[in-house]
Amino acid sequence: MPNLIHRRQLTIEWGHCDPAGIVFNSRFFEYFDWCTWEMFEAVLGVPRSGLFGAYDIIGVPLVDARARFLVPVKFGDQVEVASEVSEFRRSSFDMTHRISVDGELAVEGRETRVWATRDKDGRMRAKPIPDTVMERFRTG
Amino acid sequence: MPNLIHRRQLTIEWGHCDPAGIVFNSRFFEYFDWCTWEMFEAVLGVPRSGLFGAYDIIGVPLVDARARFLVPVKFGDQVEVASEVSEFRRSSFDMTHRISVDGELAVEGRETRVWATRDKDGRMRAKPIPDTVMERFRTG
Amino acid sequence: MPNLIHRRQLTIEWGHCDPAGIVFNSRFFEYFDWCTWEMFEAVLGVPRSGLFGAYDIIGVPLVDARARFLVPVKFGDQVEVASEVSEFRRSSFDMTHRISVDGELAVEGRETRVWATRDKDGRMRAKPIPDTVMERFRTG
Amino acid sequence: MPNLIHRRQLTIEWGHCDPAGIVFNSRFFEYFDWCTWEMFEAVLGVPRSGLFGAYDIIGVPLVDARARFLVPVKFGDQVEVASEVSEFRRSSFDMTHRISVDGELAVEGRETRVWATRDKDGRMRAKPIPDTVMERFRTG
Repeated sequence: MPNLIHRRQLTIEWGHCDPAGIVFNSRFFEYFDWCTWEMFEAVLGVPRSGLFGAYDIIGVPLVDARARFLVPVKFGDQVEVASEVSEFRRSSFDMTHRISVDGELAVEGRETRVWATRDKDGRMRAKPIPDTVMERFRTG
Repeated sequence: MPNLIHRRQLTIEWGHCDPAGIVFNSRFFEYFDWCTWEMFEAVLGVPRSGLFGAYDIIGVPLVDARARFLVPVKFGDQVEVASEVSEFRRSSFDMTHRISVDGELAVEGRETRVWATRDKDGRMRAKPIPDTVMERFRTG
Repeated sequence: MPNLIHRRQLTIEWGHCDPAGIVFNSRFFEYFDWCTWEMFEAVLGVPRSGLFGAYDIIGVPLVDARARFLVPVKFGDQVEVASEVSEFRRSSFDMTHRISVDGELAVEGRETRVWATRDKDGRMRAKPIPDTVMERFRTG
Repeated sequence: MPNLIHRRQLTIEWGHCDPAGIVFNSRFFEYFDWCTWEMFEAVLGVPRSGLFGAYDIIGVPLVDARARFLVPVKFGDQVEVASEVSEFRRSSFDMTHRISVDGELAVEGRETRVWATRDKDGRMRAKPIPDTVMERFRTG
């Protein structure tokens, strides 16, 4: 059963580009984060700032992030970011983000995130992802 | 005759906020820049990366930027940025950006920018803004 | 009696510059913030993350920020930021930051910040700046 | 023969942290970039903005970037970034960056970068890394 794919259109901004006229690499990780939150909001039907209360989490912090840069992305480019949860595990999940320019794959990103709460002693701790959350990300 | 107003909706992203849970101040200046480029693109009918060639400029660099922060803007807030050219001078202009949350003015920004070309010796230099550009920003 | 001046050397990074090869304007407001925290830490003799507890504040949020850009600052430039509290008021203060390249003033910034606590209802509120804090910023 | 290791001390800034009070992930990729440039400048003995002319390159663009986040890094933390070229290939190389807080490894990053020039048609193209560059990064 395929996963839901969330699509977002972005315009590459002047301040996102470096002196070579292409997107500075860290900015792609910002885009990934935007898209992850937007997808969770859309799929779960909860405003992003309400996700903490709705699921008793403090966030979905990253334990791994990666990007491959295949084609330079330039100032003013209209890009599409296609995001999906590529894998759910017990208390963590992988997001895949594919950024295309004119239909050509330009950047492929992956984030591994933890469904996190805070312990009584204030430390972050992973907790199981509810089945009801995982089900929402499945199609059909 | 009133000026054109360009409106853009934004969602406040996680990575734009600081440990107090509100937008880190420098991010507002990024928003202003996004909106200035978007407005010029929309009003002049030229993709932003085509503005350089269309008008023989190297950009619209800032000589002054300012923001007043009236109400905290928080993670997940849906904001509207209303932008306008508040004044055109011979070779520079002022942009005003008003950011509202639920209809309440939260941040007011102003940028002074120069219509800039590059001299033969490679230095940036202001040049006159064409009348045809200024006319496009007038309503009616 | 003149005020203390805090000096910090910075190198202009690749990711701080835009396609024109100069610092993107919002980055200067990041530098200002770095320097304000560093100065408070140095002058008050408290690590920056300990300032909240030491003075029962939630931070020093901005109500106004401004910069004038006099000379382009480029990738690789070695700059000095000279920061000072230009005015203390009852519960707010102004910081002035002067950024120089090779001794030439390139950017002049000003921040107005509030000495802020949080009300019982969770809202930010200004509170008086202790005399002992203000005295530390005076020379002689 | 072990590789040179370049060490840089950083303080975690307010604007680098998110509402959870920890460094927002994209900021680590900025740190990696800072450290790569700084290391090349130090090892090759050429100011970073002079590297283009000295080696006829347009930069060292990324084709891959990755980070593993092992321990949360918080506002005000004093960190050390230990950077090295972990592998040189014909026209690309890998950087490894290890960020430690109080001697504990907190983040491990890797960048794959290309030694890049620009073709007559304006496209970026990899070119061989000079032996004299590679030799400088070897110890002993």
